[in-house]
Amino acid sequence: MDLRIVILGAGNLATRLSIELKQHHFQIEQIYSRTAESASALADILDCPWTNDVNQVIKDADLYILSVSDSAFENLLHKLSIENGLLVHTSGSMPMQSLADFAKRIGVFYPLQSFSKQRDVDFSSIPICIEALNQEDENILFEIGHKISSSVQHIDSIQRRSLHLAAVFCSNFANHCYALAGEIASEQGVDFELLKPLIRETAAKIECLSPKEAQTGPAVRYDQNVMGCHESMLETHPLWRDLYSLISKSIFDLQKKQ
Amino acid sequence: MDLRIVILGAGNLATRLSIELKQHHFQIEQIYSRTAESASALADILDCPWTNDVNQVIKDADLYILSVSDSAFENLLHKLSIENGLLVHTSGSMPMQSLADFAKRIGVFYPLQSFSKQRDVDFSSIPICIEALNQEDENILFEIGHKISSSVQHIDSIQRRSLHLAAVFCSNFANHCYALAGEIASEQGVDFELLKPLIRETAAKIECLSPKEAQTGPAVRYDQNVMGCHESMLETHPLWRDLYSLISKSIFDLQKKQ
Repeated sequence: MDLRIVILGAGNLATRLSIELKQHHFQIEQIYSRTAESASALADILDCPWTNDVNQVIKDADLYILSVSDSAFENLLHKLSIENGLLVHTSGSMPMQSLADFAKRIGVFYPLQSFSKQRDVDFSSIPICIEALNQEDENILFEIGHKISSSVQHIDSIQRRSLHLAAVFCSNFANHCYALAGEIASEQGVDFELLKPLIRETAAKIECLSPKEAQTGPAVRYDQNVMGCHESMLETHPLWRDLYSLISKSIFDLQKKQ
Repeated sequence: MDLRIVILGAGNLATRLSIELKQHHFQIEQIYSRTAESASALADILDCPWTNDVNQVIKDADLYILSVSDSAFENLLHKLSIENGLLVHTSGSMPMQSLADFAKRIGVFYPLQSFSKQRDVDFSSIPICIEALNQEDENILFEIGHKISSSVQHIDSIQRRSLHLAAVFCSNFANHCYALAGEIASEQGVDFELLKPLIRETAAKIECLSPKEAQTGPAVRYDQNVMGCHESMLETHPLWRDLYSLISKSIFDLQKKQ
């Protein structure tokens, strides 16, 4: 595909996605970022021009991939002028229509994964969630998606919003559970390392069991002895204790529900 | 090691542990379980005698591994008579001293992992947490531990209790986060499959980043726009909405703390 692509943003997602596109021989024409430092850092990796002046953004590119934080989103769009290119964002929470005032051809290219700049990820299994205002553009986005991933799907804005919320639960919140586990262990001088095999196995289990089938622990049987003991251990951390009670209640409720 | 071992219990942990011991040529003399069905099922796998009558439990074995639920624990102990063998339990939450009235030689052999009867696990990386009343018995337990795992440590009852609570967070609670993510996605007709790569990556990240470093999401920056939108999406599930608010608050608090 002979597309001239402009990347707007140089954060975690913009970095990993543009490197991946470049590896699949897509032509990155330009990087824009608000700060010269991050724009030039990413442009160095990609060996392409960069700018931190929104007025210098190329106007006649074929595809603009907007990958900035939700808060920087609208501010940047208002300063942007796009002639005829396809403008897509990569956000889980923004509806496609949030782009409607800024380009005629709009869409979404949302890779459902948690990215870090430093950490290489295998794109081939990352679900790419796609939406576009017209079918031709959707086809273009599907074609790009299929070059980098084996899992490309049409997901509309309502579904994507739910997926994003679901992702907060199974990624951000699950990670916080790891963090609290680490805090609790370290208070007794126990190394977080000891918990890693358990974390690995807990994640691995859902490859063959549903999370509901895989659920274990005192809350499943509402074992008030163990739960009461745990809550009293958390007495000096009232927020964690409240969290313990609420999650336990939620586990028990969900197990009952059919 | 020429130990004659009796396994008391035939649940998930008892099943996986006794199979593992047998594979390392330990001699399982007998399985006891309250129900004939589960006792015989496990004894079939191990090709050893079984009983569901506590009075028939061998009295002169070298090692008794008690692996029953915390609630069945004491009831079984009161009926047991052990001549001179070493009695250990496998529970994260019970102190070693809970065995003190029932045998002279006591200890704990706690594999820190979540077990399912159907699912084979690789014991070699499972931390085995060991404690014993006297040093000689602790040496025996360490020797057994080293046969099946490369991670064997002395963990006292206070530390083990904390580890168990930490395990509830990073396993039971993390799994519940997966479950809620699945519920939220499925309400919009989105397949749980799409979330699996994210769950895998979230768990994989802590191999090289601490959970605190790995933490991402709207709660880290307390992004009230996104959080408010998520909370309103959860309006029909007040418990999940409360959970969302409380975990978000806890994430933000922990990130601030140094």
